[in-house]
Amino acid sequence: MKKIKAGIVGGTGYTGVELLRLLALHPNIELQAITSRGEAGTAVADIFPSLRGHVDLVFIAPDDAKLEECDVVFFATPNGVAMQHTPALLKAGVRVIDLAADYRISDVAVWEKWYGMTHASPELIADAVYGLPEVNREAIKSAQLLANPGCYPTASQLGYLPLIENNLIEVTGLIADCKSGVSGAGRSASVGILMSEVNESVKAYAVPGHRHLPEIQQGLEIAAGKEVGLTFVPHLMPMTRGIHSTLYAKLLKTDVDLQKVFEDRYADEPFVDVLPAGSHPETRTVRGVNTCRIAVHRPQDGDTVVVLSVIDNLVKGAAGQAIQNLNIMFGLEEQTGLQGIGLLP
Amino acid sequence: MKKIKAGIVGGTGYTGVELLRLLALHPNIELQAITSRGEAGTAVADIFPSLRGHVDLVFIAPDDAKLEECDVVFFATPNGVAMQHTPALLKAGVRVIDLAADYRISDVAVWEKWYGMTHASPELIADAVYGLPEVNREAIKSAQLLANPGCYPTASQLGYLPLIENNLIEVTGLIADCKSGVSGAGRSASVGILMSEVNESVKAYAVPGHRHLPEIQQGLEIAAGKEVGLTFVPHLMPMTRGIHSTLYAKLLKTDVDLQKVFEDRYADEPFVDVLPAGSHPETRTVRGVNTCRIAVHRPQDGDTVVVLSVIDNLVKGAAGQAIQNLNIMFGLEEQTGLQGIGLLP
Amino acid sequence: MKKIKAGIVGGTGYTGVELLRLLALHPNIELQAITSRGEAGTAVADIFPSLRGHVDLVFIAPDDAKLEECDVVFFATPNGVAMQHTPALLKAGVRVIDLAADYRISDVAVWEKWYGMTHASPELIADAVYGLPEVNREAIKSAQLLANPGCYPTASQLGYLPLIENNLIEVTGLIADCKSGVSGAGRSASVGILMSEVNESVKAYAVPGHRHLPEIQQGLEIAAGKEVGLTFVPHLMPMTRGIHSTLYAKLLKTDVDLQKVFEDRYADEPFVDVLPAGSHPETRTVRGVNTCRIAVHRPQDGDTVVVLSVIDNLVKGAAGQAIQNLNIMFGLEEQTGLQGIGLLP
Amino acid sequence: MKKIKAGIVGGTGYTGVELLRLLALHPNIELQAITSRGEAGTAVADIFPSLRGHVDLVFIAPDDAKLEECDVVFFATPNGVAMQHTPALLKAGVRVIDLAADYRISDVAVWEKWYGMTHASPELIADAVYGLPEVNREAIKSAQLLANPGCYPTASQLGYLPLIENNLIEVTGLIADCKSGVSGAGRSASVGILMSEVNESVKAYAVPGHRHLPEIQQGLEIAAGKEVGLTFVPHLMPMTRGIHSTLYAKLLKTDVDLQKVFEDRYADEPFVDVLPAGSHPETRTVRGVNTCRIAVHRPQDGDTVVVLSVIDNLVKGAAGQAIQNLNIMFGLEEQTGLQGIGLLP
Repeated sequence: MKKIKAGIVGGTGYTGVELLRLLALHPNIELQAITSRGEAGTAVADIFPSLRGHVDLVFIAPDDAKLEECDVVFFATPNGVAMQHTPALLKAGVRVIDLAADYRISDVAVWEKWYGMTHASPELIADAVYGLPEVNREAIKSAQLLANPGCYPTASQLGYLPLIENNLIEVTGLIADCKSGVSGAGRSASVGILMSEVNESVKAYAVPGHRHLPEIQQGLEIAAGKEVGLTFVPHLMPMTRGIHSTLYAKLLKTDVDLQKVFEDRYADEPFVDVLPAGSHPETRTVRGVNTCRIAVHRPQDGDTVVVLSVIDNLVKGAAGQAIQNLNIMFGLEEQTGLQGIGLLP
Repeated sequence: MKKIKAGIVGGTGYTGVELLRLLALHPNIELQAITSRGEAGTAVADIFPSLRGHVDLVFIAPDDAKLEECDVVFFATPNGVAMQHTPALLKAGVRVIDLAADYRISDVAVWEKWYGMTHASPELIADAVYGLPEVNREAIKSAQLLANPGCYPTASQLGYLPLIENNLIEVTGLIADCKSGVSGAGRSASVGILMSEVNESVKAYAVPGHRHLPEIQQGLEIAAGKEVGLTFVPHLMPMTRGIHSTLYAKLLKTDVDLQKVFEDRYADEPFVDVLPAGSHPETRTVRGVNTCRIAVHRPQDGDTVVVLSVIDNLVKGAAGQAIQNLNIMFGLEEQTGLQGIGLLP
Repeated sequence: MKKIKAGIVGGTGYTGVELLRLLALHPNIELQAITSRGEAGTAVADIFPSLRGHVDLVFIAPDDAKLEECDVVFFATPNGVAMQHTPALLKAGVRVIDLAADYRISDVAVWEKWYGMTHASPELIADAVYGLPEVNREAIKSAQLLANPGCYPTASQLGYLPLIENNLIEVTGLIADCKSGVSGAGRSASVGILMSEVNESVKAYAVPGHRHLPEIQQGLEIAAGKEVGLTFVPHLMPMTRGIHSTLYAKLLKTDVDLQKVFEDRYADEPFVDVLPAGSHPETRTVRGVNTCRIAVHRPQDGDTVVVLSVIDNLVKGAAGQAIQNLNIMFGLEEQTGLQGIGLLP
Repeated sequence: MKKIKAGIVGGTGYTGVELLRLLALHPNIELQAITSRGEAGTAVADIFPSLRGHVDLVFIAPDDAKLEECDVVFFATPNGVAMQHTPALLKAGVRVIDLAADYRISDVAVWEKWYGMTHASPELIADAVYGLPEVNREAIKSAQLLANPGCYPTASQLGYLPLIENNLIEVTGLIADCKSGVSGAGRSASVGILMSEVNESVKAYAVPGHRHLPEIQQGLEIAAGKEVGLTFVPHLMPMTRGIHSTLYAKLLKTDVDLQKVFEDRYADEPFVDVLPAGSHPETRTVRGVNTCRIAVHRPQDGDTVVVLSVIDNLVKGAAGQAIQNLNIMFGLEEQTGLQGIGLLP
């Protein structure tokens, strides 16, 4: 089979290096170009020595990258970049996978409010496919523009979906208490994510409102077919990788085998692993891999259900899911290049 | 003023060393004896070199410790120890502060169910005073037997109390999502708390039921004057010290100045610090000190209130609060020996 | 090609789970049995959920494991176990790879002194091959009994060898200052390696004498052809994986291109990566992979050479090197199953 | 006694907040002003909430701070700031304690080479006193301008001094392998010290040459009375606080009781704690305190001596030592305000 020519825009952040780690060993991919304005001319492996011997590319300025010759281009850029360059790429027949948020929210007014900018290509939003394969697999197959989900939204939606799709919970008082490692905050110089600031401490942040709230809400509302009320509180953990979503809801009925509901929902999903009843998933069991591990509890046999959902924010929450989507888009076996085992300890 | 003669039973754990750190610099305390069966004969500073030059005591076997000659004895022991030795000490006129759970739950049947043992001195429970000064200060003054609160219960009750006392929330659907450093699990050899197991990972634990649940519930029910429904999910964080309680409730009315409610409630409390509106407390700001820092939020101006409450589990959640209680019991200035500043970074 | 039937003795430690992680994806290996006395009957994936979906084996008692039907047996056991079972396995035609130290030291008296026990099969030592492929590749090909090197010895020998083989340094005053993550201390319940004890602290240990000293010394003396004087000081780092050996020696001559010496020595080695002049290798760049990254410095152009050598203690320092050796022993491509890329960040 | 009026220039870094933590509880100090260009007008406790209730100051622009009315001014600024403002302050009769490096090196040419700038007040260097109390206590008493030592230099000099002063080692081949927590790198936004970059990894840095090399060398040469040859290799540890210096030297004679040499040297030093023979100091035992803990070893009874020396880089390595020096300069009891106990765990 002819290899798929892939380009990456913005390769100096953590989703960029994670894409490179996974794509470098993907049997069907030929890495064509990786762009960076700031590091143009520098070998990728000089910035990320873990890639020495695996990635020979040199960062190239976006204008020189001939991205229009690629089969697919990943945007591993800050919000607001993909929306400027995607129209031209699509016109050139290139499929686009945006790991940022530019095309995730279908209501452009909502997007512009939460992201604080004017959308540069709002006409594309309607045709963009939200890339949560466990929900949208069919649409993903033919997507030209794929909006790769956020990290919190991936863990949280996968945890809530079986309950909502089966109409088992009140959807007006959902509470998602989420914990993330600091790599989710990116690789930009910023005092708040220095080792000395983050280490040995826990804090909530953005309690008044976080950009992932409308994204989670949108996904849950599609599943519920009605409005959803969600309180979402993200917390910063003193670790690098991993998201743990602890999801609460009030059950509409308690005579349901919740364990079976979850196992049935994800029986055929290669990247969702429902743990045995009574389990507590650890984020480290998914370190470096594309798996979401889930457990469901009903404490004291009451009417509150608690779902524990863990992912690696850089893999199933970003680069891994992007490649899962690529595999679906290009008709490859969905697990291609994603068969690793979590690095534990 | 004559110094208070203090003894410590069980000094080889983390609450033990923390008691020693604080008592060694307490101007009104004379450390009389510290017991350990396993380490009898060993200098305390050989086990905890941080105490070199400050604590000259040698661990002594409990039978040789002449604890009945103390004015006060702290139990920094596993659950189930204090209940055996307290009757004799009280008879000898010694005041007892139990940092374990033996006397925290007023309903002995509930206690025996959650702690899995028969209580050895149930007749003392009724007279034991639950040592949360922000609630029980008057009773603490004359307490002969003080039940020092648990770590999660301290952070969680202080966060919920202003809302419950003012009848501002529905008390049937409370959700306390709590995050703790690993020192709360003690200093016993156990695979589950090895560095290689805990580091760089987050997990929930004891979701089906944790022993601190009935303790929190009891405190909130006293405040509410009625039954309370609480879901309590503790999580293990990859850090040593600190608890972050994220507390959720549904507001009964939304036209209340929650910030003022909290500030008024704790205006005269030396160890509760209500942060300005919009704040997110970090556990590191209370590292090593007896302060509880609290912030209250109402996301998206909805009807869900979110309280963020942080303490150092070994200080306000254990040894520091024990000394605060001692100060109250012995008529000392409440902040004596507890004036340190959090170690940040 | 027919698959190689492999057994693992002692699979509940970190080298065990690491062997499983790597072998489960090795295309030429069929995992036959994994033994554990304590966990017999338990599914491997119940202890290590990261292996769910990849390893279906159940721990089996050693006596029931039919290890003599394997082509190769790995011992991932404490020191002193392999030496008891190896004779029978060899007799049955099974090739043995011992990840512990039983056959690493050729002088049995030295071994017995440092390891504090009587050797159970000293007659096998002479034929055991020390499995450092960069030195012993030819002998490894035909090894029936392979002594897999220790973690510190791997990083330290690879760092010193180019200098010693080229007679560039005084070998009487070598100083190896080594730093290790805590996973090197294993997965046994022990207070000293608890998160609360190790986290946020650094210490040296075993300065009077560590068991890896005679092993490093033996390897360097073979290379030097004469006695070597080595001071080896290991340090415990507040992290899980990784070894950083900082190696010091006095140069016999300073008009040598040290960078070229190292690059030439390892030009054909698939798992040794000599960094460009001026580099500082980070342990995280080899997290999860079998690579040793090395940099060589001559500070202030003086006569002291400083070599920086990093490995993942569980991979190139244990399980990965064991598989590299297996590949060589069974005539496979040396990198088979070891092509991963370091997990960074 | 009248309180000493103290000012701090540059209070937004870690040495600044550490000075505030210690000075706020110092009984003889009245904090007058703390300057910051960037944060002028912001309450100190808004940046460092750990100081809430203890420090009421607001950051003030340097020009408005009336520092000339202070008795003493601390510079907690980057290198190159103190040298510009010190002349005017000295002229105004203010005593100056510089926590940066401006006045540490007596040879201005050496300083300018290593620090890469022209010295703005070289005429003051000769009268500046190097503030290592264990060496210079007498001179410190009357110092008008005090150069507070660096963190690595403090730990390293205290470890080597007993050996050099007693002429016990060859001073031409010294090796100082030092490990530091990341707070030593400051609180400026920089990719290299992000949590995701530093966590779970170890690396050496600045092996070709680090600015603390000439400072250590100068101190050792004064003690030796002759030239000293030193290789100094600093390493970055995945932790916030703490320095561990592992110091190597060749003994000139081996029939000396090294333990006694160290104990005698530091018998009267309040902040140097020589551990019993055979000990391994941990950095966490000095967390938050001004103590240097030292152990001395002679592995395998050979001719190499190994000294292990630990400090908290922000306390004995910066703010604590500055206050120790202030106490000496102003005739106070040397331990005033520095009696805390290390925070362990």
